[in-house]
Amino acid sequence: MTVVARQTDARVERLRELLDAHGLHAMLISRAANKRYFSGLRLGDDEEATWPGTLLVTRSATVILADSRYTEQAEREAPGWEVILTVGGIAQDLPPVLRRHEIAALGMEAAVLTHAEWTAVAEAAPGVELHAMDDEIAPLRLIKTSDEVDAIGRACALTDACFAHLVEFVQPGMTERQVAWELESFFRANGAEGLAFAPIVLAGPRASMPHGLPSDATVERGNVLLIDFGCAVDGYRSDMTRTCFVGEVPDQVRRAHDAVREAQAAAFEALRVGVNGQEVDAVARRMIEDAGFEPYGHGLGHGIGLEVHEPPSLRRTRPYMLEAGMVFSVEPGIYQPGVTGLRIEDIVVLEESGTRLLTNAPREPIVIG
Amino acid sequence: MTVVARQTDARVERLRELLDAHGLHAMLISRAANKRYFSGLRLGDDEEATWPGTLLVTRSATVILADSRYTEQAEREAPGWEVILTVGGIAQDLPPVLRRHEIAALGMEAAVLTHAEWTAVAEAAPGVELHAMDDEIAPLRLIKTSDEVDAIGRACALTDACFAHLVEFVQPGMTERQVAWELESFFRANGAEGLAFAPIVLAGPRASMPHGLPSDATVERGNVLLIDFGCAVDGYRSDMTRTCFVGEVPDQVRRAHDAVREAQAAAFEALRVGVNGQEVDAVARRMIEDAGFEPYGHGLGHGIGLEVHEPPSLRRTRPYMLEAGMVFSVEPGIYQPGVTGLRIEDIVVLEESGTRLLTNAPREPIVIG
Repeated sequence: MTVVARQTDARVERLRELLDAHGLHAMLISRAANKRYFSGLRLGDDEEATWPGTLLVTRSATVILADSRYTEQAEREAPGWEVILTVGGIAQDLPPVLRRHEIAALGMEAAVLTHAEWTAVAEAAPGVELHAMDDEIAPLRLIKTSDEVDAIGRACALTDACFAHLVEFVQPGMTERQVAWELESFFRANGAEGLAFAPIVLAGPRASMPHGLPSDATVERGNVLLIDFGCAVDGYRSDMTRTCFVGEVPDQVRRAHDAVREAQAAAFEALRVGVNGQEVDAVARRMIEDAGFEPYGHGLGHGIGLEVHEPPSLRRTRPYMLEAGMVFSVEPGIYQPGVTGLRIEDIVVLEESGTRLLTNAPREPIVIG
Repeated sequence: MTVVARQTDARVERLRELLDAHGLHAMLISRAANKRYFSGLRLGDDEEATWPGTLLVTRSATVILADSRYTEQAEREAPGWEVILTVGGIAQDLPPVLRRHEIAALGMEAAVLTHAEWTAVAEAAPGVELHAMDDEIAPLRLIKTSDEVDAIGRACALTDACFAHLVEFVQPGMTERQVAWELESFFRANGAEGLAFAPIVLAGPRASMPHGLPSDATVERGNVLLIDFGCAVDGYRSDMTRTCFVGEVPDQVRRAHDAVREAQAAAFEALRVGVNGQEVDAVARRMIEDAGFEPYGHGLGHGIGLEVHEPPSLRRTRPYMLEAGMVFSVEPGIYQPGVTGLRIEDIVVLEESGTRLLTNAPREPIVIG
């Protein structure tokens, strides 16, 4: 039995407290990670935000709406849930279920349902009040239980092991794509459920693109090689970035790497229960500026769990009070478009005593090839 | 230069004809496949439906809205497009661009944008009329050019080659997951950009789940092994299903496989320019019923191109007049929950003279192991 399945009853209870707090009769759950969190139903990465396998949680019932492709799977993975066979889309099949359960006030995930789906439900069930319930549901997954931290930790440990393998594997002349494929193969061969996200593997000046797809560009001596990757174990994700040096790299690049590493170390120090994520982002950003570099344009960190990006957010533009049990990335970087890019990213769990690192690959400059 | 990039100018012109036809000043393009189709911008499978890389096409301008992670990539992949650096979300960064281009009537993709995104734009740009433009844009990609058919054909040929490899590779005792991993490895090693979708590999009674994830269940003698898989080449996708027999399988299963094959052959015969997809679905369904089996609960087929599921749809519940240049799947099946499942799926292009098959692996029962 998975981490998820053992805890679904308690999770549904917390969802029902949310119903009470907002005067709702039911909640419709469309986000794949939430479907898994509350019911145990496992959907693939390409099945996010789809109608099949939608959950309806009322004050007394737990229902999965599944078309013929998913009914057997739902019965197997979510024992105790009523599985209703659907034959059309959300606008056709949801209203009769709402009527049967006498739902007049329904919470839905506005950040997951498309505008077309939302308006179709509104038109097909005119007597039902629809309430956007995203920011209200997200906090239910924000504080991780020890079982969840363990699952993330296992994904992180496998990521460390994968990185150690890559350090031995990568040679000058290989393409970014070959490296990306090797890391994916390693994860699969060693028990991961899959990748956490499409891996970013960027050589030399391409490393300044914080989100490029791996290409046929080759790893050359004098390059940096930026690898941003992670896997999924028991539904939970890891996310780690290391920027390696291929042979000798210019002193200026080495100094930038030092600045990123020191910014990350300062962020670890600043991370405490009750601190605002904005402040920690500011600490890291200032360290990089003080070293004479332009700091990263993205945020310092993001929460991680059943999704690779989930609350909390550690960024300039959004306050977020940090609490014990939150798990998130800390990933400062320096990008010089067309020249180079450097980022170091680790996953930490915030505990009463401070941060505990879940990824543990070396953060010192690693020379490969 | 890719198939996509060569043709983007003509494609933007067709989008502008749509603006004129609907009295719009601009179209916002959020669907990843449409971003690639109109601009050449390549986003990963996990970057669907996201704000970064959104296109804005006005009557005179072509703009890509990209945050710092995507600006370099956008400039490289979409030459000729103005790249605007975004720093916040859609509600913060879109309104100034709309004002600068004097946009008062904007088409947006309601089936891709979330309800939260749509309402945020509506609130942040109260002077702009928003129009849902999904069913209007989809037809622009419906009729494939010969370059596009070639790209789909290359993906299909690689899928045929992969299947031939799997027939040699699979042995009793292997897990579904091992088979799934082997096919993905084959695609990567042989030049595919990636998978078309998460492959479905189901052994024995599990084959009755038309959409289950590969598990650690093993392939055993007397089982069927259903493999539904495809790859992406130059952005374009393939999709094929074969149901193999592992050693001797019961006569009843063999008869069901015959019924599926004959239903598919009858559908190929019925497919003609000007025919309604519903009628073809009915032909295949009737053949299976006449053979004494319950027909599939899903549709007979779906269009394929830059997305694995796109128009046209061949199903009971929706009329669709078929035209030359459409490319779609033909995939009847028989499912006996807990007992067995059989499906045969091929990709065809509809031409004036009838269908031309793009997937060509044998459709006769194949015995493996």
